[in-house]
Amino acid sequence: MKAKTLATLAALTVIAGAASAQAVRTERNMSLDLANRVAANAVAACTANKYNVTATVVDRAGTVRAVQRADLAGPHTLEASRLKAYTSASAKNNTLAMMEGAQKNPGAANLVNIPGYLLLGGGVPVKVGDEVIGAVGVAGAPGGNLDEQCAIAALDQVKDLLK
Amino acid sequence: MKAKTLATLAALTVIAGAASAQAVRTERNMSLDLANRVAANAVAACTANKYNVTATVVDRAGTVRAVQRADLAGPHTLEASRLKAYTSASAKNNTLAMMEGAQKNPGAANLVNIPGYLLLGGGVPVKVGDEVIGAVGVAGAPGGNLDEQCAIAALDQVKDLLK
Amino acid sequence: MKAKTLATLAALTVIAGAASAQAVRTERNMSLDLANRVAANAVAACTANKYNVTATVVDRAGTVRAVQRADLAGPHTLEASRLKAYTSASAKNNTLAMMEGAQKNPGAANLVNIPGYLLLGGGVPVKVGDEVIGAVGVAGAPGGNLDEQCAIAALDQVKDLLK
Amino acid sequence: MKAKTLATLAALTVIAGAASAQAVRTERNMSLDLANRVAANAVAACTANKYNVTATVVDRAGTVRAVQRADLAGPHTLEASRLKAYTSASAKNNTLAMMEGAQKNPGAANLVNIPGYLLLGGGVPVKVGDEVIGAVGVAGAPGGNLDEQCAIAALDQVKDLLK
Amino acid sequence: MKAKTLATLAALTVIAGAASAQAVRTERNMSLDLANRVAANAVAACTANKYNVTATVVDRAGTVRAVQRADLAGPHTLEASRLKAYTSASAKNNTLAMMEGAQKNPGAANLVNIPGYLLLGGGVPVKVGDEVIGAVGVAGAPGGNLDEQCAIAALDQVKDLLK
Amino acid sequence: MKAKTLATLAALTVIAGAASAQAVRTERNMSLDLANRVAANAVAACTANKYNVTATVVDRAGTVRAVQRADLAGPHTLEASRLKAYTSASAKNNTLAMMEGAQKNPGAANLVNIPGYLLLGGGVPVKVGDEVIGAVGVAGAPGGNLDEQCAIAALDQVKDLLK
Amino acid sequence: MKAKTLATLAALTVIAGAASAQAVRTERNMSLDLANRVAANAVAACTANKYNVTATVVDRAGTVRAVQRADLAGPHTLEASRLKAYTSASAKNNTLAMMEGAQKNPGAANLVNIPGYLLLGGGVPVKVGDEVIGAVGVAGAPGGNLDEQCAIAALDQVKDLLK
Amino acid sequence: MKAKTLATLAALTVIAGAASAQAVRTERNMSLDLANRVAANAVAACTANKYNVTATVVDRAGTVRAVQRADLAGPHTLEASRLKAYTSASAKNNTLAMMEGAQKNPGAANLVNIPGYLLLGGGVPVKVGDEVIGAVGVAGAPGGNLDEQCAIAALDQVKDLLK
Repeated sequence: MKAKTLATLAALTVIAGAASAQAVRTERNMSLDLANRVAANAVAACTANKYNVTATVVDRAGTVRAVQRADLAGPHTLEASRLKAYTSASAKNNTLAMMEGAQKNPGAANLVNIPGYLLLGGGVPVKVGDEVIGAVGVAGAPGGNLDEQCAIAALDQVKDLLK
Repeated sequence: MKAKTLATLAALTVIAGAASAQAVRTERNMSLDLANRVAANAVAACTANKYNVTATVVDRAGTVRAVQRADLAGPHTLEASRLKAYTSASAKNNTLAMMEGAQKNPGAANLVNIPGYLLLGGGVPVKVGDEVIGAVGVAGAPGGNLDEQCAIAALDQVKDLLK
Repeated sequence: MKAKTLATLAALTVIAGAASAQAVRTERNMSLDLANRVAANAVAACTANKYNVTATVVDRAGTVRAVQRADLAGPHTLEASRLKAYTSASAKNNTLAMMEGAQKNPGAANLVNIPGYLLLGGGVPVKVGDEVIGAVGVAGAPGGNLDEQCAIAALDQVKDLLK
Repeated sequence: MKAKTLATLAALTVIAGAASAQAVRTERNMSLDLANRVAANAVAACTANKYNVTATVVDRAGTVRAVQRADLAGPHTLEASRLKAYTSASAKNNTLAMMEGAQKNPGAANLVNIPGYLLLGGGVPVKVGDEVIGAVGVAGAPGGNLDEQCAIAALDQVKDLLK
Repeated sequence: MKAKTLATLAALTVIAGAASAQAVRTERNMSLDLANRVAANAVAACTANKYNVTATVVDRAGTVRAVQRADLAGPHTLEASRLKAYTSASAKNNTLAMMEGAQKNPGAANLVNIPGYLLLGGGVPVKVGDEVIGAVGVAGAPGGNLDEQCAIAALDQVKDLLK
Repeated sequence: MKAKTLATLAALTVIAGAASAQAVRTERNMSLDLANRVAANAVAACTANKYNVTATVVDRAGTVRAVQRADLAGPHTLEASRLKAYTSASAKNNTLAMMEGAQKNPGAANLVNIPGYLLLGGGVPVKVGDEVIGAVGVAGAPGGNLDEQCAIAALDQVKDLLK
Repeated sequence: MKAKTLATLAALTVIAGAASAQAVRTERNMSLDLANRVAANAVAACTANKYNVTATVVDRAGTVRAVQRADLAGPHTLEASRLKAYTSASAKNNTLAMMEGAQKNPGAANLVNIPGYLLLGGGVPVKVGDEVIGAVGVAGAPGGNLDEQCAIAALDQVKDLLK
Repeated sequence: MKAKTLATLAALTVIAGAASAQAVRTERNMSLDLANRVAANAVAACTANKYNVTATVVDRAGTVRAVQRADLAGPHTLEASRLKAYTSASAKNNTLAMMEGAQKNPGAANLVNIPGYLLLGGGVPVKVGDEVIGAVGVAGAPGGNLDEQCAIAALDQVKDLLK
């Protein structure tokens, strides 16, 4: 094969792709202040129902910003809540909805095997408009739907800050 | 948004949560002496039935206190028994009951994917009254229910110490 | 047992196996130039459908040659695409076909537990004739079959180079 | 509770268990010579059917003694064959039988989650009489039952050495 | 050797050890409320000096209770601060002092290789009297001694609670 | 201790910290287009000197955006280049300078033990003004200083885009 | 090159090696009974000096047989003692002597980087005559030489069983 | 900045790089037959000196082709020999020479921290002319230089096959 042909093909590929490209992106992201509020709210919402949980808040990259573990929450809730938050931030979806989707669709059953994913209710994205700027994960309540309720309640309390 | 509003919200959140807080907790926990007894009892109970097992005892944090591996127990029983004990101490429940619950409830099916969890019979919490102070995990018998029987027998022998 | 018998058996075994052996093999393999093209093509094909994906290209050993992650593709797509590519290069098959095969055949169900395997659509081998020289893995589209379509489109654009 | 009671209980426990104990055990184990033969035989048996496999032989502790990977066997076959061998040596059973057992018995379904276990056909114990001295694992054939056939054929060729 | 001798030895061993044993221990431990204060104080103390840090607080078992990562603290500060806290809680010592000790004493040089240890300044135990109930780890300041200063300042602010 | 005192302290802490807080941050970040250019430039700069390298570009979170491995670059260059890029993005500094600093300062010697850090020349931050938006890591040249030269040359070629 | 030559070479290689080979080995190994004694003795010896330690006993394969962690021994002592025992059993030497050797000999300095090795005093082989049948590792005393003293004392108490 | 400028730059970059590119490479690689010979030779050469070693042979990608562990070689020699072989194949150099280089050159001291590297004597590349097609790693002799001697002797016996 000819090197010249290779070069031409490559050049065309890049040109086609680059037309709308921008070298430096501007993004919105989670702050520590917001992360602390969401984590505290989530633990408090669950504590009010006598659920001992950990809440982990991650930024848009899925990296931890804040963690709070309730006094009687088992150690497994640390990693479980982090994974739910990571899953939710990375997939830009609630983990409960993702779990239900994977259970209905054979083609998605093995999503559970993606490293970093945990498909149990309790992970909810944090959004500013349509932009996902992070997520909260809650673990330790006696059911993933209950973990999710605490997460949603926590976000509801900060909705005025997400504008 | 205004910093002042943020600060006020935060202050209220913390105040609401702190009313019943206590900075330093008092907890009961597993001793090495108790851990050795439970591990020895569990191995002995299984040996009496010709089951070659490992018994691992963890404290309330899910961290190992004692391990005993019978002469013909395979190496996989080390980590299997530890995970059962960790799961049981962290979730404050028997692993056999947890497994059966997860198999009946689609929303809990993915509990098996939580790091540190192993949902097979043989993990049993160690309690003083209602307080979980650790757990024992047994692995190697030809069935999780049989592993659990050895664990329960082991705890039965120390019940007078758990008061 | 006799050492002489052992030696004779061994000698025969090796002789039988060695008749067609060759100490040094000649193989074809992926180049960086080709890997870059395939990765770029795959991202572009998905972007055209508004799917934010990562494309990873591996060589015949399953080792990474090129990675490109689209601006809104979550971090989980990095490892998911690499695992699909690795699985496809190592098994010399499409991951979508492997997934469907494992779902139909109970004897293959546990293939999902092989370290390095990810049985979700999106991994496609790169072949020169019948020889597999690597693979591309795509992750991030809303369905493994859609990931696979981007992978196939990417390879279609370089088919003239694979001769 | 009283320390004296504790001590008495403990002493009785140990005495009861120790009656038949022996401080130093005598065991039979796999040699490198045997491991090389079994690995070579297994690869040859599969090659004869045009299956490109890796064969791994472990000792009674589940630790590797010999590995051989055929020229076109994918890299995933290394760890897959080792895990099958480890599983088989540790559980003292064929992995194919273990897989089928786990699929029939809900109480055993989560055996697949034990660290080090891979429940796919191809792992077969190596025995001297009733004593398991190691195992062979084969991976890469288009079906675990076919991997097992190569393993069994390999062991059949050395049966005179296992006495 | 005789089983009877074995049993007698064992019984004596256990009796000797058990005289002062207690099956269930009473311990003091970190609360979430305290952990949140310490983490917030440590981040604030560093922020006042324009150091972007993560503060992690662990309980007496070395398990995380609270994490806060400042807005510009790099992701490596998460694990660095956690390891400093774990090291400090487990060894019951400041990590800065441990590092200096290891650098002076050849016999301790390889302490750096203990899994879970990170011998860099910034980990400080949290004590009630002489009892270590947890630790705080700080990472991200331009020097371990500066990380430690933030940790110490944070604990100084809660000293009235540690009685 | 009194809950009221606790609450007051906490409220004051948060108020003090929140005065300049902002719930949602605006940040600049690496694009795939930029990452591809930098990776290609770095490989080309090294290839011009007959160094076979991998170049990895990460975003401000330290997560991979693009990887290119030259045809004769060994597999270890994949992880080495990624770790250099991660280290550089997370610490906001050149890895060569960090290495030299750690070698001069005993208090920093153990920085090499921070998970994710690799203190070898070749990692260079990508900046827009003073803001670090990612980093490039190069590995495979016969010296970290040479890897760094390729990284710097690669960034020099895109400097007009970083404004 | 000719296949016939290959085969002949191979046959000779194997014949030369096999003359003294034996397919099945007979070995002595650690029992649980012995492991329990050694672990208990080691913890007791250290406790007598007010050192809070974990003692781990492994068999000749380096796999755990018994673990005992004293009531105030930090969690890091679990893995530290296991690694010392593994190192000692695998290298058939005291870890204190290995550490000192590595510190004197530049060619051995990087032994510390071998996976599974921990070159700190406290690991001591258990021997029957010249045959190493396992090892004990102790961690938690304020110095590796002190850990070793407890290990040696523990073995001294069982020397009559090691014949 | 303008998209058009970006596209032009990109096109030029790729064209410049592609002039000598080739999409599909032809490479020489290790065969199983050769790997078996080298591994057997290396173990035999060490056994002749009463060194109990493991020999691991990898292909040009650093992936295992054959492993043989002598009857008294400790389990740590498995991973040590593999890492030496991987290091040698990936860096295309003897590990003994690499270690000595890193010890003399401060800029290379941290090469020991590259994942997959083990800088101890005993890893030697396998070459056909100047092309590295794999490597052998030996571990277990009482000194890396002795491990290397066995590796070199093993390769010397197959030199006629490496043409």
